[in-house]
Formats: sequence, C-alpha cells, structure tokens
Amino acid sequence: MHDTARNYILRGKSIGFVPTMGALHEGHMSLVRRSCHENDITIVSIFVNPLQFGPSEDFQQYPRDFDADSERLRNEEVDILFLPDSSSMYPDRFDTYIEVGDIAKKLCGAFRPGHFRGVATVVAKLFNTVNPVRAYFGQKDFQQTLVIKQMIRDLDMNVDSIVCPTVREKDGIAVSSRNVYLDAAQRDAATVIFKSLNEASESIKAGERDAGSVRDMMRQRIMTEEMISEIDYIGVYDPETLDEASLAEKEVLLAVAVRIGKTRLIDNMIVDFEKKRLSA
Amino acid sequence: MHDTARNYILRGKSIGFVPTMGALHEGHMSLVRRSCHENDITIVSIFVNPLQFGPSEDFQQYPRDFDADSERLRNEEVDILFLPDSSSMYPDRFDTYIEVGDIAKKLCGAFRPGHFRGVATVVAKLFNTVNPVRAYFGQKDFQQTLVIKQMIRDLDMNVDSIVCPTVREKDGIAVSSRNVYLDAAQRDAATVIFKSLNEASESIKAGERDAGSVRDMMRQRIMTEEMISEIDYIGVYDPETLDEASLAEKEVLLAVAVRIGKTRLIDNMIVDFEKKRLSA
Repeated sequence: MHDTARNYILRGKSIGFVPTMGALHEGHMSLVRRSCHENDITIVSIFVNPLQFGPSEDFQQYPRDFDADSERLRNEEVDILFLPDSSSMYPDRFDTYIEVGDIAKKLCGAFRPGHFRGVATVVAKLFNTVNPVRAYFGQKDFQQTLVIKQMIRDLDMNVDSIVCPTVREKDGIAVSSRNVYLDAAQRDAATVIFKSLNEASESIKAGERDAGSVRDMMRQRIMTEEMISEIDYIGVYDPETLDEASLAEKEVLLAVAVRIGKTRLIDNMIVDFEKKRLSA
Repeated sequence: MHDTARNYILRGKSIGFVPTMGALHEGHMSLVRRSCHENDITIVSIFVNPLQFGPSEDFQQYPRDFDADSERLRNEEVDILFLPDSSSMYPDRFDTYIEVGDIAKKLCGAFRPGHFRGVATVVAKLFNTVNPVRAYFGQKDFQQTLVIKQMIRDLDMNVDSIVCPTVREKDGIAVSSRNVYLDAAQRDAATVIFKSLNEASESIKAGERDAGSVRDMMRQRIMTEEMISEIDYIGVYDPETLDEASLAEKEVLLAVAVRIGKTRLIDNMIVDFEKKRLSA
C-alpha cells in the first residue's frame, strides 16, 4: 500500500481516503462519493480495529460483511479497497500509541477508556500507509472528528480531514453499522434520539438560551422511552472543546449517548445560533 | 517545509533527514555527510525540543550556537536547514503525544520520565513535515534509536532510520553537545566511561561470559573516579529489548549513564560476540 500510494503521488495524483470498519451504509457511501468527487484516486480501507474496542465491548459481534461491502464499493469510482489484517496492523511486540489529551477524555471518552487512543493510533497508521491529501469522516462520530483534527494539527500531518453530514433514515435515525443490533421494537424506540435533538434545536432556534433547560428537555424526552436503559451523556456542548455550555449563544453541539438493551447509540446535531441555521 | 518537501518528492528526489538540537559536533556531521552521500536532498533540523527535557533538566542551559552551526553546515552539501520555533511546534492547546511502551521505560527512560515521549513526538512531527526516506541518528543515543525504530514500525512510517557509529575524541570520550558543561578536571574524569566500556568489551572478547562479572568490573572501574557523583545505570544488556543480559553469549550492549557534577553523560558499545568484532 505504501508503494502504491507513493506511485500515485509521484504521478501527481491526489489521494482521498475513507477509513472504515466495514458494514458499509449510506453514511460511508456519502464519504466515498465525496472523496471520488474531490480527488484523483479514492482509497477505502476496511479494518475492524480491535484497539478501539474495550474488553467488554462488541468487537467480536461487530457486523462484518465483506461481500456486501465490496459490492457496494464496486458501484462507485473507488480505486483501491485496502484490507489490512490484524497481524500486519498489530504485529507481535506492537507497543506505540497516540494519546490525544483533553478532547479525547470527554463525552464518549469518559465512557470508553482507550477508545480514542485506539482510533488515533489506527488512523495515524492508515494515514502513514495511504498518504492521503484528504480524509473523510462522518459527523455522527463528532468527537472522533475533533480527536483526529487535534492529532493532525499537533503531529503536523499533511492531511485535510473533511467532516460530512450525518446521513439519516426517513424517521431521523442516524445510519450506523450498529443499528443492525436493534430488534424492531428497539429500532422504533431509537427514534426518540433524533426527536430529542430536533426538539432541542428547535427550542434554541425559537429563542431558548439556557443550555440547562435545553438539556433537561432533551433528557425528559429521552426518558419517555422505556427501552432506553441508560443515558451515558446528554446535553449542550461547546463544539470545539466539548465542555458543557451554559448559554446557547453561539454555535453549540447537542449530543446524546444512550443504551438500548446492550446497544450503545450516539447522535448529535450542531445548532449554529448566529445564522439560525440547523445542520445535522 | 511541508510544501518544499512535497515538491522535492514530486520531482522524484529522495530526502535524507538529520534531526538535531544544534550545538553541532563531529557526531552530527558524520550523520550529515552520510545523508548527503545517500540522498538527493539533505535536510537538517535544529530544534531544542522542550518536550524531551524534564522540569529539573538542562533545557535552559542547553548549548545554542546558531552561527557556528550554520557555518559548519555551510561546508557540507546540506540543502535545507530547517529551524522551527517552539510556538509553531507546540502551539496553544497542543495536546497529542506518542507513547512508545516498554523499550522507552528502561535505562534512560527510568531516570528521565517523559523524555522518550518527547523524543518520539517531536521526531514524528518532524518526519511528517520533512517527509524523509531516510533519517540518521547516532549510536551514542542507543535507546533513542530503538524507540524511534519501534515507533516507525508500529505507526507504519515510511522512513528508514539509519544508525551511525558513535564519534569519539582521541581519548575515547563520545562527542556530545553536553561535553561543554564539563570543566577540565571533569572532562578528564569522563574518560573513565570509555575505559570501562572498552575493558568490558575486551574481557568478553577474551572469553568472559558472565554478564554479572562484566557489569561488576565496569562498575568498579567507574568508581575509581571520584568525580563520578552518581551512576544511573551500568551493565550488559540485550541490544533489542534492553533487558539485562545474564550471559554474554551473543551480541550484547554495554551501556553506562553517570553524573559528573550536574552533568549527565551516557555512552555505550555493542559487542558482537559471534564475530568477535567490536563496534562502537
């Protein structure tokens, strides 16, 4: 992969990169299409990265469907599907990690110790191998996009990270590889997440400035759904620092992480207060 | 620097890189000459990296002599002297670190907590900026060369790290920017380090197999010198793992770290037992 990438670069080709864990859905495909549009060459990687799963998390069960994935990619102008295996990514005596600080400790980082260390490390490895000028990530994993931006900036990586809007089903649910874990009733219950984000966003756009009130409203809406077994976090945050906001006076992040049964679901929405515009 | 390096690469030029902290001496110059010999383009960086100094270490006093350094480099075929400043290397909210595990915790790592984290982080930043195919390091900082090799391998960096022999003064002292800290009497006392390494190497070549005996001999020799105020470590190690060796049956590393007054000095020697050859 190193050599292939280097050859493209020597021929003056720009490489766009979409790192994934497979189980590709419309969210991934939107990244792939954008990369194909913006670069000469698009490389997609599929690697279920053990380093970003905690010991009690779903690494084993994580959905894998190589045939469906490659079929989906065949319909796009993807140049290379890169499929590293675990033993080449993490050979014996692998012992180097990239630690991103503060931004990786908040929200999901507080509930998934080591997760963002695993993400930063594998993304750095893939960047070093694939040598992209642009890499594409979904806004659904909002904190991940901040962690990667921080790493790129701090380590002087020569990559533009591009964040693409969350793709949603008709009922508002953010598409996610983990949605397959949900049975029909859980799937239905999960729609409360988007409703909660949407209501909060509407209330801010209607003039609500008190972030605490917005948070309480979100929480109350979520708790109307009995199948939500746990709330990891919910609230209104500064989209740069992920600190809790007290006032919704400038752009804010609404973010939620909940559990339905054993399935952990996250979603978020940016409310751009000044432009009174909503992007998700 | 990113753009300059990219332009060289697009023109098919190979970049050799010598990262330094300045106060250039013959050790550095041997790296520079080798890089000039092996690459189309040679880039030398000078950056006294605050991240690799502990709070009680000599960051402030570390010798800086830009005029002498640039004069020395002017006499070689160096293409670019790269001089990043602290505020561009570590801007506000810098918060990402590369942690190399085990190999960075032993020997010097045990006495200088955070040192190799600082080294790995700055070298990764410089690699990302300079984009070399080869980077040159001196064997005198032997553990550093292992830490960097581990990082390169684990993070899939596309760089060859090349380790060049320690350059010594006529009396055997390894050249080092820190030697300027020594007054005449200390400078004289410091020759005991090389004597100790040399005697140990000779005894192994003469048939001594017991690493404990070799270590004791080294320690005794060092302790004949009253100006040695402290021994951080001394002994016979596996040159891959830096674990203490019990038998000198294959290639071993003889390594020493001592203090003379406030000055910390390190030195080492590889004894290649099988070939009965000594390299320093």
